[in-house]
Amino acid sequence: MIVEIIAVGTELLLGQITNRNAAYLGEKLAESGFDCHFQVVVGDNLDRIVDAIETALGRADAVIMTGGIGPTQDDVTREAISAATGRPLVFNDEFADHLREFWRSRGREMPESNLRQAEHPRGAEQIANPKGTAPALALLHDGRWIFALPGVPAEMHYLIENDVMPRLRDAAGVEHVVMSRLIRSWGRSESQVAEMLDDLYHESTNPSVAFLASAAEIKVRITAKASTESEAAALIAPYEETVRERLGGSVFGADTQTIEQVVFDLLEERQWTLATAESATGGLIAARITSIPGASSIFRGGAVTYATDVKASLLDVPEEVLAEGVVSEATALFMAEGAAARLGADVAVAATGSAGPDPQEKAVGTMVVAVHTPEGSGSRVLRMPGDRERVRTYTTTAALHLLRLALTGEWWER
Amino acid sequence: MIVEIIAVGTELLLGQITNRNAAYLGEKLAESGFDCHFQVVVGDNLDRIVDAIETALGRADAVIMTGGIGPTQDDVTREAISAATGRPLVFNDEFADHLREFWRSRGREMPESNLRQAEHPRGAEQIANPKGTAPALALLHDGRWIFALPGVPAEMHYLIENDVMPRLRDAAGVEHVVMSRLIRSWGRSESQVAEMLDDLYHESTNPSVAFLASAAEIKVRITAKASTESEAAALIAPYEETVRERLGGSVFGADTQTIEQVVFDLLEERQWTLATAESATGGLIAARITSIPGASSIFRGGAVTYATDVKASLLDVPEEVLAEGVVSEATALFMAEGAAARLGADVAVAATGSAGPDPQEKAVGTMVVAVHTPEGSGSRVLRMPGDRERVRTYTTTAALHLLRLALTGEWWER
Repeated sequence: MIVEIIAVGTELLLGQITNRNAAYLGEKLAESGFDCHFQVVVGDNLDRIVDAIETALGRADAVIMTGGIGPTQDDVTREAISAATGRPLVFNDEFADHLREFWRSRGREMPESNLRQAEHPRGAEQIANPKGTAPALALLHDGRWIFALPGVPAEMHYLIENDVMPRLRDAAGVEHVVMSRLIRSWGRSESQVAEMLDDLYHESTNPSVAFLASAAEIKVRITAKASTESEAAALIAPYEETVRERLGGSVFGADTQTIEQVVFDLLEERQWTLATAESATGGLIAARITSIPGASSIFRGGAVTYATDVKASLLDVPEEVLAEGVVSEATALFMAEGAAARLGADVAVAATGSAGPDPQEKAVGTMVVAVHTPEGSGSRVLRMPGDRERVRTYTTTAALHLLRLALTGEWWER
Repeated sequence: MIVEIIAVGTELLLGQITNRNAAYLGEKLAESGFDCHFQVVVGDNLDRIVDAIETALGRADAVIMTGGIGPTQDDVTREAISAATGRPLVFNDEFADHLREFWRSRGREMPESNLRQAEHPRGAEQIANPKGTAPALALLHDGRWIFALPGVPAEMHYLIENDVMPRLRDAAGVEHVVMSRLIRSWGRSESQVAEMLDDLYHESTNPSVAFLASAAEIKVRITAKASTESEAAALIAPYEETVRERLGGSVFGADTQTIEQVVFDLLEERQWTLATAESATGGLIAARITSIPGASSIFRGGAVTYATDVKASLLDVPEEVLAEGVVSEATALFMAEGAAARLGADVAVAATGSAGPDPQEKAVGTMVVAVHTPEGSGSRVLRMPGDRERVRTYTTTAALHLLRLALTGEWWER
């Protein structure tokens, strides 16, 4: 079943609010195995909303509309559905009573204009909306469902979960399950990953394989459709194995696991504590680690040694090492070792570099990460593209990934 | 001029990412007085992208596309523009060289598949994309502009501001100027600000006054339309004066000025250096300060003292103070003073607290900020709503604002 989403609201077109509803609806539809080919945003304009509904009815089996069902003059979703389907608006006494009662119960008089909300296209059902007053509608027109829901997220979520999705699943006779597995990797480019998995991408339809790149991370998504969860899982398993085998050590986690969570888990497992030593990243590594609830069980603390002499006074980096270069592997290694010693931690990660916009010693984007563990120490020079913000963020992510490779011992094995 | 936005990406339809680009583009178009009637999201499917482009060309004067121009097999925006306009794809040697050089400069070999990115519909111009590798396109087809931009926000923003908007303004022969001034405040709620400026909001149309709330900050936007920039500026000036007068010390800056930039400028002006001491915020304050290019002229460094004993060993907070409570004004004050002394800074800001999800000493959301300057020291207990991430972010922002009030002396005057 193909479902199209139409969000109504000039404030969306003007960028005054972000269309988070679309992401929510997309996820809900995908979970139930419905296809969504188009999401459309249209302003509070009758003709253009009619246009959007007609187009959607021409290419989808169901249309979910959000917004434009309030009491004010610019709320014209009801009128648009009426025009697009040729069903006149009729007044619903029962709902008018319901509206009056709602206002009365709050000790206020209902503005007469609110009675517009009691009108709906002939044949439409009122959907109960216990989270608000805007009356949502469901209309089965020529074998296609049209839903008009409020744009307020809490109300819309409730109606989707309790009314719309059950109706759609019934209509589609859905008996299958759609399941996705996300394999997360770091250290290879999107095109490298795509080349390594080219055959899976092209040859497979169920499960299907897709690539997603965000920040420095490449995700491989394996999606299977089957009649039960365990059958879907069984379809996914061999693909996951192949993906993990081919991508090797660059895979660090799956689904919602973040690199900081993976690092946290590895440290807890080994009962090692962590310290950070940062120059160019200026506290970002420590901030990522401490974003995890309960970080105090593994994290001792960190030093942000921005000025050169602070690297000596706070982390005991020898003056002669600093004199040879602050953006260097030697400095990074001493920073890591100094942080472990001064903060009483088993493990330390350090980052220094030239984040820009003006170069410091080395070309902008030259960054150095070092890791110290009870099993060894190592450093790596990285070249990061982009502006200051991106260089710092990517270096932070890289430092966490290198820390992972040190904790699993993969770094020392290479 | 009517501009339509097409976002390409199955991940958008599946709700894996939120379409923030649409809000950004909507705002930019509105600022320049362009109309946007439809925003469309379509998946990585050639036929449907072609369909979306054809529909857009039928009802808009320009089409801005984001996403689908990467190197992988599912990036088909180039092919779709070619099909929709009947312009065959041609190979651009110059850009191919550029791509090869980009990879070479990073010491890596370019996968051959990346050469797809050097193809573009005949007649299209390559737009330089200094923020990334994906080659953006601009094509004037039958008097209508079509732009294909990367979906990565930083790259897209750069190209919109530096290439797309100037081209569209030229094409539209825009002769009036729309100018906005953003007055930024902190410390009052949106409804307080709205009440204090109620008459301006209701009585004015040119300039118009609007309120925007984001994180803890309330922004007042004054927008004027005039035939020249100086006329628009003259319309805005008296409104800005009134807004600043009424909101007083809660105004910290204007337009793109961030609180960290304001703090940086105040420190530079006084030739004072800064140190940070963080517990619950875990490095976020230092990270915000060091996000500013040239931060080293005022920033000495910071200590992230997460474990209690590290607050003593690194910042000399007396054991007896720690024994009485880590989430306390006394601890925060000692942290600030210790950071100033240990890191050799004139000024220090410290934050400690209970960020959750589990309470630490005090209820979740109880946060303490302290500031030390050569003119005095002060601390403040804050109650922050929301989850761990929000508590940490809001506390970081609050710490920077309190630091500003200390640097301007407003704190001590109260």
